Amino acid sequence: STRLPLDSYAVCARDKRDMTISYSDQFFKLLLRWKGSLWKTIWKDLALYLLLYYTINMVYRFGMTDENQAKFLRYIVLFNGWTHEIPLTFLLGFYVAMIIRRWWEQCQWISWPDQLLFNVSALIRGNEPETRIIRRTIARYCILSSVLAWRSVSLRVLMRYPTDEHLVTSGLMNQEEYEMFRQIEVKVDPHKKWFVPLNWIQTMLVRCLEQERLTHSNELRGLLDNLNHYRQGFFQLFLYDWITIPLVYTQVATISVYGFFAFTLIGRQFPSVNDAKESVDLYLPVFTILQFLFYIGWLKVGEDLMFPFGADDEDFEFNYILDRNFEMAYLIVDDLHGQVPPCYVDSLNA
Amino acid sequence: STRLPLDSYAVCARDKRDMTISYSDQFFKLLLRWKGSLWKTIWKDLALYLLLYYTINMVYRFGMTDENQAKFLRYIVLFNGWTHEIPLTFLLGFYVAMIIRRWWEQCQWISWPDQLLFNVSALIRGNEPETRIIRRTIARYCILSSVLAWRSVSLRVLMRYPTDEHLVTSGLMNQEEYEMFRQIEVKVDPHKKWFVPLNWIQTMLVRCLEQERLTHSNELRGLLDNLNHYRQGFFQLFLYDWITIPLVYTQVATISVYGFFAFTLIGRQFPSVNDAKESVDLYLPVFTILQFLFYIGWLKVGEDLMFPFGADDEDFEFNYILDRNFEMAYLIVDDLHGQVPPCYVDSLNA
Amino acid sequence: STRLPLDSYAVCARDKRDMTISYSDQFFKLLLRWKGSLWKTIWKDLALYLLLYYTINMVYRFGMTDENQAKFLRYIVLFNGWTHEIPLTFLLGFYVAMIIRRWWEQCQWISWPDQLLFNVSALIRGNEPETRIIRRTIARYCILSSVLAWRSVSLRVLMRYPTDEHLVTSGLMNQEEYEMFRQIEVKVDPHKKWFVPLNWIQTMLVRCLEQERLTHSNELRGLLDNLNHYRQGFFQLFLYDWITIPLVYTQVATISVYGFFAFTLIGRQFPSVNDAKESVDLYLPVFTILQFLFYIGWLKVGEDLMFPFGADDEDFEFNYILDRNFEMAYLIVDDLHGQVPPCYVDSLNA
Amino acid sequence: STRLPLDSYAVCARDKRDMTISYSDQFFKLLLRWKGSLWKTIWKDLALYLLLYYTINMVYRFGMTDENQAKFLRYIVLFNGWTHEIPLTFLLGFYVAMIIRRWWEQCQWISWPDQLLFNVSALIRGNEPETRIIRRTIARYCILSSVLAWRSVSLRVLMRYPTDEHLVTSGLMNQEEYEMFRQIEVKVDPHKKWFVPLNWIQTMLVRCLEQERLTHSNELRGLLDNLNHYRQGFFQLFLYDWITIPLVYTQVATISVYGFFAFTLIGRQFPSVNDAKESVDLYLPVFTILQFLFYIGWLKVGEDLMFPFGADDEDFEFNYILDRNFEMAYLIVDDLHGQVPPCYVDSLNA
Amino acid sequence: STRLPLDSYAVCARDKRDMTISYSDQFFKLLLRWKGSLWKTIWKDLALYLLLYYTINMVYRFGMTDENQAKFLRYIVLFNGWTHEIPLTFLLGFYVAMIIRRWWEQCQWISWPDQLLFNVSALIRGNEPETRIIRRTIARYCILSSVLAWRSVSLRVLMRYPTDEHLVTSGLMNQEEYEMFRQIEVKVDPHKKWFVPLNWIQTMLVRCLEQERLTHSNELRGLLDNLNHYRQGFFQLFLYDWITIPLVYTQVATISVYGFFAFTLIGRQFPSVNDAKESVDLYLPVFTILQFLFYIGWLKVGEDLMFPFGADDEDFEFNYILDRNFEMAYLIVDDLHGQVPPCYVDSLNA
Repeated sequence: STRLPLDSYAVCARDKRDMTISYSDQFFKLLLRWKGSLWKTIWKDLALYLLLYYTINMVYRFGMTDENQAKFLRYIVLFNGWTHEIPLTFLLGFYVAMIIRRWWEQCQWISWPDQLLFNVSALIRGNEPETRIIRRTIARYCILSSVLAWRSVSLRVLMRYPTDEHLVTSGLMNQEEYEMFRQIEVKVDPHKKWFVPLNWIQTMLVRCLEQERLTHSNELRGLLDNLNHYRQGFFQLFLYDWITIPLVYTQVATISVYGFFAFTLIGRQFPSVNDAKESVDLYLPVFTILQFLFYIGWLKVGEDLMFPFGADDEDFEFNYILDRNFEMAYLIVDDLHGQVPPCYVDSLNA
Repeated sequence: STRLPLDSYAVCARDKRDMTISYSDQFFKLLLRWKGSLWKTIWKDLALYLLLYYTINMVYRFGMTDENQAKFLRYIVLFNGWTHEIPLTFLLGFYVAMIIRRWWEQCQWISWPDQLLFNVSALIRGNEPETRIIRRTIARYCILSSVLAWRSVSLRVLMRYPTDEHLVTSGLMNQEEYEMFRQIEVKVDPHKKWFVPLNWIQTMLVRCLEQERLTHSNELRGLLDNLNHYRQGFFQLFLYDWITIPLVYTQVATISVYGFFAFTLIGRQFPSVNDAKESVDLYLPVFTILQFLFYIGWLKVGEDLMFPFGADDEDFEFNYILDRNFEMAYLIVDDLHGQVPPCYVDSLNA
Repeated sequence: STRLPLDSYAVCARDKRDMTISYSDQFFKLLLRWKGSLWKTIWKDLALYLLLYYTINMVYRFGMTDENQAKFLRYIVLFNGWTHEIPLTFLLGFYVAMIIRRWWEQCQWISWPDQLLFNVSALIRGNEPETRIIRRTIARYCILSSVLAWRSVSLRVLMRYPTDEHLVTSGLMNQEEYEMFRQIEVKVDPHKKWFVPLNWIQTMLVRCLEQERLTHSNELRGLLDNLNHYRQGFFQLFLYDWITIPLVYTQVATISVYGFFAFTLIGRQFPSVNDAKESVDLYLPVFTILQFLFYIGWLKVGEDLMFPFGADDEDFEFNYILDRNFEMAYLIVDDLHGQVPPCYVDSLNA
Repeated sequence: STRLPLDSYAVCARDKRDMTISYSDQFFKLLLRWKGSLWKTIWKDLALYLLLYYTINMVYRFGMTDENQAKFLRYIVLFNGWTHEIPLTFLLGFYVAMIIRRWWEQCQWISWPDQLLFNVSALIRGNEPETRIIRRTIARYCILSSVLAWRSVSLRVLMRYPTDEHLVTSGLMNQEEYEMFRQIEVKVDPHKKWFVPLNWIQTMLVRCLEQERLTHSNELRGLLDNLNHYRQGFFQLFLYDWITIPLVYTQVATISVYGFFAFTLIGRQFPSVNDAKESVDLYLPVFTILQFLFYIGWLKVGEDLMFPFGADDEDFEFNYILDRNFEMAYLIVDDLHGQVPPCYVDSLNA
Repeated sequence: STRLPLDSYAVCARDKRDMTISYSDQFFKLLLRWKGSLWKTIWKDLALYLLLYYTINMVYRFGMTDENQAKFLRYIVLFNGWTHEIPLTFLLGFYVAMIIRRWWEQCQWISWPDQLLFNVSALIRGNEPETRIIRRTIARYCILSSVLAWRSVSLRVLMRYPTDEHLVTSGLMNQEEYEMFRQIEVKVDPHKKWFVPLNWIQTMLVRCLEQERLTHSNELRGLLDNLNHYRQGFFQLFLYDWITIPLVYTQVATISVYGFFAFTLIGRQFPSVNDAKESVDLYLPVFTILQFLFYIGWLKVGEDLMFPFGADDEDFEFNYILDRNFEMAYLIVDDLHGQVPPCYVDSLNA
């Protein structure tokens, strides 16, 4: 779930002020939201299910002799009995808990350049053009490597920068860098050359030490640690992408849920018998629909979060993240570099 | 749940001394508390539920012929049978466990300036006015950035400082700083310019090194690490605010619980039949009320903790935290700076 | 659960040697222990429950006409049916799992001064009186701050040092320090001035650097990191004390369990009917008693661990910890300072 | 689950572009995959089960007198009743959750040389042959030690390098190193001499400091920390290999699942009776087959992930990892060493 | 579960090569293992249970009049009904999950001297006798302190070194060290003087700095950090030993499981009635035996892992660990110190 970036501060501020003390009202509004909601995710499956259900229902009611109906009723009772024995809840509970944990961990591994760039701004000081351009280039390479890395896990980023030429066009790379980049070959790793701009940053930092822009090798080490942490964020996302949840687990969960509803197609036909052996007709399988919302909805939670890098409503908005990082990066290393209001000693008495 | 700040030490000390060895008595008192309690959170829903329940009950008892009653009884049995099949407990168990984990993690990410300021006090030494004012300004910027950051996640802080002018009025910012602050523009990130005072602190630390108030670039690095940790606390709260629990999950949980009680509106009507097929009339659906407390109460635990930054009883008291941090900040960097009792060598023989 | 401190090494060593290979025997002995046991924690509740149960039972058996008994039996069946539908186990499972996790985390946040003091011993070297007194004073302030901090969370420590004067009497503070301490004012934070001795330690460390007892500012930084870690331990305990488990959760758990047993008071009366509709009389509700042990016992696990700083059998023995830390502190910084057996080169050939 | 290494970038990029917005279609395709799937893992067990089931079914239908059939039917009902009482789901839920956590932790402990080698490239600078050969040798020893270490936990690596001679043949070791390696003896530790190349790297780093290729002992410490982290990855895998999940737990899970299906062999025979005591004949035990997929499939998830170092479809592809690391290692320390595009000051105005 | 140390590499290598692609065969072999197995852990309890069961069975079949049998049958039905209502699975699931987590955490806290000693080897350089003896003595003190520490938690280590004299005899301590060690007194802490050899190591490291064997105080700090990490491992094990799982929890779990089987002694007697009210006789309570394996087995998982420091099959083999560490320690600090194969520049062209 994502808030829209632009203008949202004002909105969200007003929102909060309008809120009454209790969140309950807002909570019910949440239930009715469409975007990223249960309703949107489930309506196709539910429509298909009801179509099948009423087809069978019509055949049962109008296409069968009384004798066949009685015979079929036995199967209804048998199948209905079975539906009580499938403990979907636990399976889904454990399965979805695991997926949510993975999903949140992935979200935590998203690399933000802030820490690295704040340190660059603190340690590579000065406003002469040479130093400014070094800081700005480091910032640009940070964004460039995140585009290269996320392109191989996120559909949104891939659609924005489908080829390397788009990187040049968008100004993330100049022609000379592109030539240098093109000549590097990576054959085995499917994520290819995402780390190259980070290597360039590393070389720039090393040069800064050699040119005595950094005054102590400790400062280099601090920057290298930050750079490594930044790189680690991409690498971990590849790991989550590469080693997914075992297929068998997903298949077991999916087959169980859909198998359950296959059995209800017969077991929940009306007229049926209640616990007191009385025949009851309800025309609409209200309870089964509730269960459908419940179980299929829960399964969809898992499906949606399993691949959080797509373009669905619930997926991470990498494009917003890129825009935000781009703006922040230049603010930190350039516009706000060395800014500080003056201190007045006489304020001490105030 | 929060203890009241002022005077509470004395109170809580007395409290504890009055306690008997066993906590059990205190425990039962907890059950009867109103503030932040189950009773307060649930009474409106319960009243509405009972209203609906007795409306149906009255129609059933007084508005139906005997024949219709018999027919309706069949539905009661059917619906009652269904209510046994909704495994709310597991769903709620997993759902609330996840929310509580998130809630506690958020609570752990609240930024406290103590560590940063203790280090500032240890490394930027001296009591001449210039140095004191530097330390005090760093402390003030710490608080300022926490107000700016928390304002976009916490309703309480937003109500206390609704606009930037309030920051000037309250003395967190002077006019000159406000002008400088106003000229910075952040377009993409909805949390805007919260990090600016932290950038100012960074520049001040860098200046301290350049002016040789810090004697070694290692000391700068230590302070930058602390500053980064402090900034990280705000950033993480934004992340939790931005990437919420998937809406589908919340909808599944809420619909299941309310769906369950919709079914009980019919399935738990009295007179009903017990397991031995005997008709029993109880007038008050005591068991269903217990289930209401149980399930709706549990769901409310989740709702309350999902947005812990509001103004509810259970929400984090950011205003208290701000006051506490403000007092501590100045104590650490100014009042207690360099304080130490004298050591006497002759105490060695004691 | 705590082992007794003194003499226990010998005891526990003998214990272990007496053990057979299998722990099973020891395990059964555990079941019969009284201190900190299920039996001790539950007997009052169970006695009360049985009193209520037999009161109703007597009325049912001797105070009712046959007709009333038959009518009452219907209610018994109805209530008994209900008792099968309360899924206490999951609720308790999730609830107690969360409490146990918190409890263990709190236990991990107990501050031990060993690491800080070992580093003090390694870096502030020398056996001349001035240096020794510095190390010993740091050790004393460590203990002093832990007393001040734990006093506001632990009943045991509060009972041992109820006022600041007790600190002076016990020798943790001298009169001069007490005066200095008394003049510091903390108004907002309810935990008051626990951090002051840690500030004194910090100033002493800074002085050591200025007086060149520490040879490099890196050494100061290492000590400050250790000091901060030590302080963090107290702060986290305050956090756990301040932000408790949501009251609603506790109320839901408690009401569900006691509600369940309220229903069994009627639903489990004897003579009852078994699954084959035969009347069976057992006089003693053995099964319900087992459930009582099970559910109430489990709930008590949660209650006991929720406030682990009291004076119950299961609570942390802060007094033992204080004694242990006191002894260790002086051993590390003074008695064992600089101790090492001589190395003999000729042992190389052995 | 593993993506194939070579050419997969292009493939996966195309894949993603072809995807519609919703993942659902792709999701159903997942269900039908064979490699690493439920179907592949379960078909043998299912075939055996159905064979046994129909053997008993044939005997029951054709080999029994009516009297015996009636008698046998009683047992069917009894056994069927039992099958409802085995709560496999929870057991499997907890069991598989634990195994998956372990499996993912192991996956996180796989050692990647990137961080160490990036630091080597940053700190041991220069393109003269002596320095290049040092960096390349360090890279080679990294790979060598990972082969030595993984060989004792992974079947794939063992099959690729079954003896030490294969290391020489493949060029990971030269003859001189092999001689030196052979003379070292490790008797107790079953993982033998995997750490020796890491010791060589350590000595090389120390020599670099002594020869002033490293300019400060801090740089050595940084590299040693990285080296230690790299070594830790292997050591932890040994620990997971050595201290496995308690055998009893696995036995309990396996026996319960297979025991359950042993009881269904009799309890689920057709013709059977449904809840309304009517005889129903279905010829194919569809529901039991669904349960088979469900329970045995879930158990297989656990079995497959318990030993993730084999050669199964779900197992870690260490050979791919080795190839990838080999390519990356030389890229980092040699081909990309010191590479950086030039910065142009006039780009500042762009 | 532990692999045997000596010769096991060869064995396990052969093992792995013999494996077919699928682990399934090996998996079934696991089920039949005796050492550390379910069968070994459970057979005594099962035998006792069956003895009691058949005693009651014999009385019921041969020692009762028909009337009494009919009466007893009622109780059988009642008790059998109860056995369905005890939700042992969840209790055991949560209980065992917690114990396994603790067990694995303890396993992770086992101290291995590798990291400390690799750093000692890197930083305290030289092969002259004085330096060698320092490194070797540090290695020996590492092992010595682990023996002293583990002796108070592990039965195996205690049996190997029951008194301090055994330490001298085994060569871990010389006479002079023993005298020095004996004179130190620790009264409060039950783990006594385990940390003393670590204090000696610390003093030796400090001396190395003073004698300029270490060239920078940073190196000392690195070594002290490693030493502290090593000490932390012992301390944490003491913490796990001291603050055990709350006794009430264990009692609740144990009483529930054994209570359940007490009820089955009557409730599962044969001949009984099935769900269709038909009398069925099975002579052997096969289903109850399966449940016995299941529940008692699961409980035993918990019991075995609760005290992992005994001498059971599943317990940590501290003696193997000591032997392994002893061998590794001397290899690292002495035999392999400074070893590295020569680099040849001309290999660059290869």
